[in-house]
Amino acid sequence: MNVHIITIGDEILIGQIVDTNSAWMGEQLNLSGFKITCIKTVQDQLSDITKNIWSSIQEADVVLLTGGLGATKDDVTKKAIADFLGTGMYYDKEVHDRITSFFRKFGREPNEAHRLQSYMPNGVLLLENKMGTAPGMWFETNGKILASMPGVPYEMKHLMTEKVIPKLIKKYGTKPIFHRTIRTAGMGETSLALKIESIESSLPANTKIAYLPNLGEVRIRVSAFGEKDDSQEEIEKKVNDISNKIEKELGNFVYAGNEENLPTTLGKLLLRKKMRLATAESCTGGNIAARIVRIPGSSSYFNGGIIAYSNGIKIKELGVKKETLESHGAVSEETVKEMVLGAINKLNVDLAIAVSGIAGPGGGSPEKPVGTIWIAVGNNENIRTLKLQLSKDRLKNIEYTTNSALNLARLFLLEN
Amino acid sequence: MNVHIITIGDEILIGQIVDTNSAWMGEQLNLSGFKITCIKTVQDQLSDITKNIWSSIQEADVVLLTGGLGATKDDVTKKAIADFLGTGMYYDKEVHDRITSFFRKFGREPNEAHRLQSYMPNGVLLLENKMGTAPGMWFETNGKILASMPGVPYEMKHLMTEKVIPKLIKKYGTKPIFHRTIRTAGMGETSLALKIESIESSLPANTKIAYLPNLGEVRIRVSAFGEKDDSQEEIEKKVNDISNKIEKELGNFVYAGNEENLPTTLGKLLLRKKMRLATAESCTGGNIAARIVRIPGSSSYFNGGIIAYSNGIKIKELGVKKETLESHGAVSEETVKEMVLGAINKLNVDLAIAVSGIAGPGGGSPEKPVGTIWIAVGNNENIRTLKLQLSKDRLKNIEYTTNSALNLARLFLLEN
Repeated sequence: MNVHIITIGDEILIGQIVDTNSAWMGEQLNLSGFKITCIKTVQDQLSDITKNIWSSIQEADVVLLTGGLGATKDDVTKKAIADFLGTGMYYDKEVHDRITSFFRKFGREPNEAHRLQSYMPNGVLLLENKMGTAPGMWFETNGKILASMPGVPYEMKHLMTEKVIPKLIKKYGTKPIFHRTIRTAGMGETSLALKIESIESSLPANTKIAYLPNLGEVRIRVSAFGEKDDSQEEIEKKVNDISNKIEKELGNFVYAGNEENLPTTLGKLLLRKKMRLATAESCTGGNIAARIVRIPGSSSYFNGGIIAYSNGIKIKELGVKKETLESHGAVSEETVKEMVLGAINKLNVDLAIAVSGIAGPGGGSPEKPVGTIWIAVGNNENIRTLKLQLSKDRLKNIEYTTNSALNLARLFLLEN
Repeated sequence: MNVHIITIGDEILIGQIVDTNSAWMGEQLNLSGFKITCIKTVQDQLSDITKNIWSSIQEADVVLLTGGLGATKDDVTKKAIADFLGTGMYYDKEVHDRITSFFRKFGREPNEAHRLQSYMPNGVLLLENKMGTAPGMWFETNGKILASMPGVPYEMKHLMTEKVIPKLIKKYGTKPIFHRTIRTAGMGETSLALKIESIESSLPANTKIAYLPNLGEVRIRVSAFGEKDDSQEEIEKKVNDISNKIEKELGNFVYAGNEENLPTTLGKLLLRKKMRLATAESCTGGNIAARIVRIPGSSSYFNGGIIAYSNGIKIKELGVKKETLESHGAVSEETVKEMVLGAINKLNVDLAIAVSGIAGPGGGSPEKPVGTIWIAVGNNENIRTLKLQLSKDRLKNIEYTTNSALNLARLFLLEN
């Protein structure tokens, strides 16, 4: 069973916006066991859309359209579907009533454009859109499916999750399938693969491991694809057995057994240990704290931080000794350790993260080339440090350092 | 003249990565006056690629392929091109020599896979790739063009900029075209459009204004499209005349007349005025400082900051008065003003930015609902403040506040 996705929008063709809808749809369909064989972006033009529906419906079993629905989009997709079906349109009072009540809820009156929006191609099944005014559409012909959704991401996601994917599963049965994601940090893709080589080389039939690396983190996705007769429980058990083996083998390199991110895991640990955190950042310039604060509720465990970008602030605000800076330099194990102690004592916390490094692209020396980074995490009794040797790419270095520092804090909490 | 882009990659179809290459290519081609009518992503499979080359070459004048080149990709695109052309492959010694010297530069020896990589379809023109081992390919047939590039973004960008676009311009002439981007902050899209309504309603023929909004910023793009006989100078003059009128009308809402971002503009102003900056952040948690520090060389004007997420730090590190917090609250004009003064005095700078707000999604009250944000910028003599009333979306609120704070600092420097 093959799926084509057609995205409608000139603004994507001219690069004004990046098409993230298709990536999300591709991922969701793949996770449900459907195969995507083509993603197309086409112009906001009736003839172009109709032509592409025709060519895709010949190559694929299911064609999903997004975009080009709604009053401001001139409902061009709806017209293309009516053209493709060779039917006219009818006025749908229910749709009009929904649009009207949607507008009145916000104290506004719908206009003529909204009345025209209530005309629908004959023969389609409407998919109720609880997030907006334009309903989705579903049409079956000769065993093939054509469905369309608005391009607004949360409306599309709502219709995909609540209507389109369940209907596809109902129609095509789908073989049982199960995925689990293990999130790791602190070890590269190649080393991880080496460490779980024996698990990977003896995987049961129809199971798969995929590595998804990203600047200091690697997600490992374990999947099992069953046959029609396999039970879902069996498939899930397969994935869970492999995942448990991997988690055991990788130990503390695993920080979450699902899609939870690193600052969330760290926050949960801090809450559990009833400890409060602060940061002392030089080269990351506040990025570590900003990542922590993006998590709602972080005020329960995060006090704040000092961004000590200049040496003056390192000395004055964090109590780093002038002699330390002179003899070891700002980018040194000694300096980041003193930054930790300074943050602990000044900001009234149980744990502090400190980083200092040369983010680049300039500023290196033969002894300390661009990309040299020191990280320290700890308290008054105990400090753990880590040295990174990264690239010349400033933005990547900042992100890599941020992930590594959050991970070092997690490891410190696990071990202390 | 129509262009199709074909991106090759299963990892895009299953949503593992988002296709940003096509968006970039679409933008560059559009800016050069070429029309993109379709972007397709297809599987890493010989038959699929060949089939799509066939269908696209019938609909478009130019077909550009990316991805599926190089040893690890099994060079599937090259094979598809040879299939499409109906020719065999030949061993290209020059390509092999380039690959060999590329590897030796890094102290490695190429292997058998790299020798196979040196086979090229007969009849194509190779486009030298200075950024990697796989060359681009260019083929002309019946007045149509087929070109391919590796999928690695910097290799693709290099080949597009240095080879493909110049060759397309040479071949198709292109009508003169010119664009200029005006970057604004502090005014919404609708208000901007209203303010320059008279300019927009009297635009000369074949010119266009586009608004590209993004969380507190709006880019305005002015474009002129000439006919074959128009001179490039004429077209540029048209755009510059309109742009100058817009810039005059919008005054200080314009922060840059090109693609420069807000922290870069602010950095240049600080350097020119020989002033140093610090931040005092509550709800943005270091995000403002992190944006400033992403600019290389920011240490020349940025000292650092205090992330005062807890009230304790606002009092202890920034000298905010306990009474101020008690009578006005942490999210108040009085508090952010005291945060500015605290940062100025503690961090030894000429200018400080302070923010405090309720980022959400929880934590609001009837008097101060979620999304209430106060920003202050100033020095010991003068402080300018701004209140925002934003949404319940934590991440959007943080970004919007960050842009607004950077912009307020820019305005303060212009006026003081």
